[in-house]
Amino acid sequence: MTLNTILLAVGPSDNDRADALAEAVVEVAKPTGADVVIAHVFTESEFAKTAKRLEFDEDADPDEVAKRHQTVRTMTKLFDDAGVDYTIRGAMGEHAAEIIDLATEVEADRVVVGGRKRSPTGKAVFGSVAQAVMLDAPCPVTFVRGENGNGN
Amino acid sequence: MTLNTILLAVGPSDNDRADALAEAVVEVAKPTGADVVIAHVFTESEFAKTAKRLEFDEDADPDEVAKRHQTVRTMTKLFDDAGVDYTIRGAMGEHAAEIIDLATEVEADRVVVGGRKRSPTGKAVFGSVAQAVMLDAPCPVTFVRGENGNGN
Repeated sequence: MTLNTILLAVGPSDNDRADALAEAVVEVAKPTGADVVIAHVFTESEFAKTAKRLEFDEDADPDEVAKRHQTVRTMTKLFDDAGVDYTIRGAMGEHAAEIIDLATEVEADRVVVGGRKRSPTGKAVFGSVAQAVMLDAPCPVTFVRGENGNGN
Repeated sequence: MTLNTILLAVGPSDNDRADALAEAVVEVAKPTGADVVIAHVFTESEFAKTAKRLEFDEDADPDEVAKRHQTVRTMTKLFDDAGVDYTIRGAMGEHAAEIIDLATEVEADRVVVGGRKRSPTGKAVFGSVAQAVMLDAPCPVTFVRGENGNGN
């Protein structure tokens, strides 16, 4: 019953809720002393686009691209301020499957994922990535709902 | 960024995963010193059935019925052993709405809910209660997947 490792899963739509995600992790990682693995998963096309924007080659190391990503940098600033230890991982592939593989590989005791409440059209949504991770992760999963720009 | 109160939401199908739910809570409540509110929500018919089985009147206090429920007793034993402080709440009504109301009332920093991976017919499922709680809870929600009796 000891919490040693938290996998914080980050995708391309998490920039708006980077603070909320990082805060939810700090609340648990700081008192437990758990290590955080920040995992940024890119699909192939997301990776190509992000690598280009950040002036990497297309065959760049996903870990290096993840480290430069704005969402990850927002989070690491909060972790540095809070004194929480972290490592950064990048991965390429299908989001849910890569998150589950990483959670298994790092023997995560908790996965933290983000999501939102409403689609741009106002419909209540629950993300398929978050749902797939919850159904198959090797450990409990914490869902952090971000604000969604329409006051809800 | 301090975690003071964890709402552990319990429903009628959580008996099989009571240990897993309680362990996920202890992992966080013990190092943070957070108080746990164990909330057992009954629909009206579940309440009538449970009250009768436990030899309460139908107009019994839901808090008292919750305290005698097997799932809750399994959890409190683990909390007692771990030295985690808790209170027990019973509520009657629609599961997700009652959980969200209680989370708001106790100013929960985290809600913990259970669920399973497969329906009895083997289909992947994600519970509508868990989903509704995630979309509307006032704080992050941790989902604990229980075993489901078919080896998955």
